[in-house]
Amino acid sequence: MPQWQGGNNPPYVLGAHLLNWLAPKTNGPFEEVPIDLDSSLEIEQGIVAKSALLTQARSAKSLIQKHSPDSIIILGGDCGVELAPFAYLNERYDGETALLWVDSHPDVSIPEDFPNHHAHVLANLLGVGDKEFVAEVPRPFKPEQVLFVGLNDMIEALNSKPLQDMNIDIATPDDIKEDSSKVLHWLDSRKPSKVIVHFDLDVLDLREFRSLLMANPATYEKMKEQVPTGSSIETIIRLLQDVAKAYDVVGLGITEHFPWDAYNLQNMLQRLPLLGDINKKDKAPYNWIF
Amino acid sequence: MPQWQGGNNPPYVLGAHLLNWLAPKTNGPFEEVPIDLDSSLEIEQGIVAKSALLTQARSAKSLIQKHSPDSIIILGGDCGVELAPFAYLNERYDGETALLWVDSHPDVSIPEDFPNHHAHVLANLLGVGDKEFVAEVPRPFKPEQVLFVGLNDMIEALNSKPLQDMNIDIATPDDIKEDSSKVLHWLDSRKPSKVIVHFDLDVLDLREFRSLLMANPATYEKMKEQVPTGSSIETIIRLLQDVAKAYDVVGLGITEHFPWDAYNLQNMLQRLPLLGDINKKDKAPYNWIF
Repeated sequence: MPQWQGGNNPPYVLGAHLLNWLAPKTNGPFEEVPIDLDSSLEIEQGIVAKSALLTQARSAKSLIQKHSPDSIIILGGDCGVELAPFAYLNERYDGETALLWVDSHPDVSIPEDFPNHHAHVLANLLGVGDKEFVAEVPRPFKPEQVLFVGLNDMIEALNSKPLQDMNIDIATPDDIKEDSSKVLHWLDSRKPSKVIVHFDLDVLDLREFRSLLMANPATYEKMKEQVPTGSSIETIIRLLQDVAKAYDVVGLGITEHFPWDAYNLQNMLQRLPLLGDINKKDKAPYNWIF
Repeated sequence: MPQWQGGNNPPYVLGAHLLNWLAPKTNGPFEEVPIDLDSSLEIEQGIVAKSALLTQARSAKSLIQKHSPDSIIILGGDCGVELAPFAYLNERYDGETALLWVDSHPDVSIPEDFPNHHAHVLANLLGVGDKEFVAEVPRPFKPEQVLFVGLNDMIEALNSKPLQDMNIDIATPDDIKEDSSKVLHWLDSRKPSKVIVHFDLDVLDLREFRSLLMANPATYEKMKEQVPTGSSIETIIRLLQDVAKAYDVVGLGITEHFPWDAYNLQNMLQRLPLLGDINKKDKAPYNWIF
């Protein structure tokens, strides 16, 4: 689902397609959710491109209902791509799920605080935020179904008004660095029938994995100073493998792939002799430069 | 041509395929040169995997002869992918060509000095080095047909014994930073009928473009201190556009794409629940870590 409006940045489109190209092929049905590439980015009721995002979430829902799957892999795009599939899975399994929110950010902002929907999606899944997005979640997750994993940035967003009484549990990057026990103990205390995993690639350390919004080459040195150390690729692999060995994982969303090099390279190839147009001057566009 | 043995590193295979995936589609015929993915990496007569590399260069030659094209785009793979196509083009145009070697390195090493063939290929095209590779170049380039562009590393290799009398001209990163005049004047003084461009992506600055061997995330901070500043993406685009507006470019090789993030991501996806094998432990392999 190459959605980009929720992060307000065109490279998410290439990020989603590249992620799909790199992923192993599965036997299940494959659907690409149609995404409006030219939609307006105006703020509507506090949300950038709200109507396009809602339309896209509803398209995703209808494609899921076509297949009524037992499990779903979602390749994004911005974090908002998980609204429809995670809402579907929690309803399908009667709320007997646990949701691991593997992410540097909590994604619990509301339109009053921040206009980009990719930071709202967990709030929506908890029944908080814009009414129309919340209406797409027939059975909201309860706070005790959710564990933040690797959260280390903007934790103060958890203290926003609608979230402050929810007390969602957290496993920090330090908690998961040596082994997976904190996460496994949390799951053992809840014994969910099924586990759903949100994996925002920005949980990874930008010093190791650089296809992230925050690893913009133009501001990388500055961000390296400001952004706390994230989790290593091997840490997250080990953790998700450990979880899947003990529990039935039915949902996996991978989001926020921001392939700076591939995007710049694609732009460059379109402008080179023999391959592209030697009169083309447009540089690769980004909307949010730190 | 996803050749990897000349740089002795598996990610060049993915680098070539990804480069092709990102490139605009052309109308001309497309061929993928068959590459041995499991070949021995033993040193033979001073060259790592010499026999596999020779076989692959001969396959490339035969695929070119099948079409007898007027122009060729080559997507690598390591720099050695250009041996057959550039040899073909210089013969086809009776030596009336100029070869712009857009690269951080001169690629004029010989087996006695360095075993990885990707650093030998320009020497071979000039008629220097391993006899069997040189025999693949029926009409060697003369030194006055060649201009180094963006060269800023290992310049001392130009003083190796076979090269020291050749006096190949150089445009440094500083020479091309503001405008393309130094390169255009050089071409004007030679008036070639056709221009051939070798574009090793490592001519780009690793602080801006990080899908380069030298931008290994594990050693990035150290390399940033050691590697001199390269050219920006926009500088190289402008230069190649300026050249192509004035001259007939008939060959373009793009090489040494080393997509660290995509390679690590591909490995990770193969090991995640739902998508891959949760018992798979193998990390992404590299052969040369600085």
